[in-house]
Amino acid sequence: MTKIKSERVILAARPNGAPRPNNFGIEDVDLPEIEDGEVLLATRYLSLDPYMRGRMDDRKSYSAPTAVGGVMEGETVARVIASRHPDFAVGDHVAAYLGWVSHAISNGTGLVKLDERFAPPSTALGVLGMPGLTAYAGLLEIGKPKEGETVVVAAGAGPVGSLVGQIAKIKGCRVVGIAGGAEKCAYLVDELGFDAAIDHRSPRFADELATACPDGVDVYFELVGGAVWQAVLPLLNEFARVPVCGLVAQYNGLAAAEKPHFLAATLGTILTRSVTMRGFIVREFWHQRSQFLEEVGGWIADGRVKFREDVTQGLANAPEAFIGMLEGRNFGKAIVEVGAPVA
Amino acid sequence: MTKIKSERVILAARPNGAPRPNNFGIEDVDLPEIEDGEVLLATRYLSLDPYMRGRMDDRKSYSAPTAVGGVMEGETVARVIASRHPDFAVGDHVAAYLGWVSHAISNGTGLVKLDERFAPPSTALGVLGMPGLTAYAGLLEIGKPKEGETVVVAAGAGPVGSLVGQIAKIKGCRVVGIAGGAEKCAYLVDELGFDAAIDHRSPRFADELATACPDGVDVYFELVGGAVWQAVLPLLNEFARVPVCGLVAQYNGLAAAEKPHFLAATLGTILTRSVTMRGFIVREFWHQRSQFLEEVGGWIADGRVKFREDVTQGLANAPEAFIGMLEGRNFGKAIVEVGAPVA
Repeated sequence: MTKIKSERVILAARPNGAPRPNNFGIEDVDLPEIEDGEVLLATRYLSLDPYMRGRMDDRKSYSAPTAVGGVMEGETVARVIASRHPDFAVGDHVAAYLGWVSHAISNGTGLVKLDERFAPPSTALGVLGMPGLTAYAGLLEIGKPKEGETVVVAAGAGPVGSLVGQIAKIKGCRVVGIAGGAEKCAYLVDELGFDAAIDHRSPRFADELATACPDGVDVYFELVGGAVWQAVLPLLNEFARVPVCGLVAQYNGLAAAEKPHFLAATLGTILTRSVTMRGFIVREFWHQRSQFLEEVGGWIADGRVKFREDVTQGLANAPEAFIGMLEGRNFGKAIVEVGAPVA
Repeated sequence: MTKIKSERVILAARPNGAPRPNNFGIEDVDLPEIEDGEVLLATRYLSLDPYMRGRMDDRKSYSAPTAVGGVMEGETVARVIASRHPDFAVGDHVAAYLGWVSHAISNGTGLVKLDERFAPPSTALGVLGMPGLTAYAGLLEIGKPKEGETVVVAAGAGPVGSLVGQIAKIKGCRVVGIAGGAEKCAYLVDELGFDAAIDHRSPRFADELATACPDGVDVYFELVGGAVWQAVLPLLNEFARVPVCGLVAQYNGLAAAEKPHFLAATLGTILTRSVTMRGFIVREFWHQRSQFLEEVGGWIADGRVKFREDVTQGLANAPEAFIGMLEGRNFGKAIVEVGAPVA
């Protein structure tokens, strides 16, 4: 077998605000031959997710930052192209945390063989992967939606938000999605069955959101922060639940302009309306993964849950696709089809 | 029986910021003779509580505002001085929501006869009343302190905070109280058995708080907001719980100066450390009142829970005592001994 070169995207320099192409670098490394107990993996799909922006900064978060010069981290779906490991055969698809690389060698730790009963392998990065479990557990365990309640979801066209809204519909709620642009809003209502969708770019955004929630908001699934949070806050009902899952508006370190004393307004609303805000990281709910795969996999098979992917071709284009995702330019789960040579 | 005059304190004008004496007025009204099914009550003690500041504003909160010209609202302990009601006898002490008045007529609705087994009647306004139940239910139901955890309580020398800290000690926690001034801080440690007390007026407040919490903060019982919240935020541990019970720093509408983007920092910490913030109003836990009275009453009888009252003489002095309480000048539960004539 010929030597395999692995192409990798590294963090060339920490971004100051929004990442730019020159924050990334590409390099090739030669991989050694695999040894007993190892497999050689070719990346088929790389997931692009907002949390990766946090890893690019040198500050304390729930995970350690990526080192400058280090490989960008991320979830992948890979194909086994050579194996000296008893549990994996050539041709198997696995979910793995390989990062932004074309090939990698693994001793099998952390590899999860994919169950392809319900949907194609790329869904292991989206609706049946980490974003899907995030939506499922965050909505059901923290949001606790009850039939007839109003659920508002930020970033409703994204991989987490779109599943949050669809599960809330299955649970009998009124669902209002927030998204950027008319096309995404139409998709939420026409394709996913949301009751309403509001364009956060509208100059009358806050008023339109209030009109779409005549009975207030019982569950707000927070993925954005910033101006969206400020518009939702006055609509929260007594005993509202707010799962805080993402804050994409402030990941670039340039928080959207805060109205004066908006922290005081936030705390005041939490107090006077007995609101629960609860942050979470998906690993807290990892133990629910089998139940999640069965239930959401079943809804996909039944046609009750739909999903959409936004696929970029080629690892070299991953930085630009990632930058675009942070700006909301993707429409569906952002994925890079790496197209690595398999021999 | 001679006609009874009731002295009342009314809201003369809405305050702009901190209340001043001229926001209040005093008037006398003649009460009619009681009829069948009624009792005549003489107020013995009036409770002064921070929430009353909110009622003075004309804005939506969890209760309707007091009208200009209306009687200031509040909890009282009163004595039955005449009765044509089968359930109440002259000399009975009752807890009642009479407001800032010296005398009132009631048909019995909402009157709770006091159980004086554990402590004197005035405690029905403090450690065995609404502030006590607030502390008990907020800490145990929302804070959920576990043995060995660190509990920080704002306004630790106040009627709610002092009980929160003492219950947390009973539950085996490390307890750090925040209070204003050396005398209150010494009281928390020497009299109530807190592990540490930090003076929020110290120029090194945030550093001193961090030093007192070497293992971070698992439960923060919020009664203040403002600068105290900003000092606690960086200390919160993963899965910390924050019962939000009061925000006295912002009740006067003049929120303490917010650091820039402190809302973003608050939301970011909730997200990355999986924090739960939960506002509550004590009425949510009213059903726990008997259990609370038995348990906390027992702790008082055992000497495990202590309480302190700050008593002002005479209804006419209630406005000034209230203004002082909002500035933290009281030391113990703020109460007015109305001293109403009983015949």
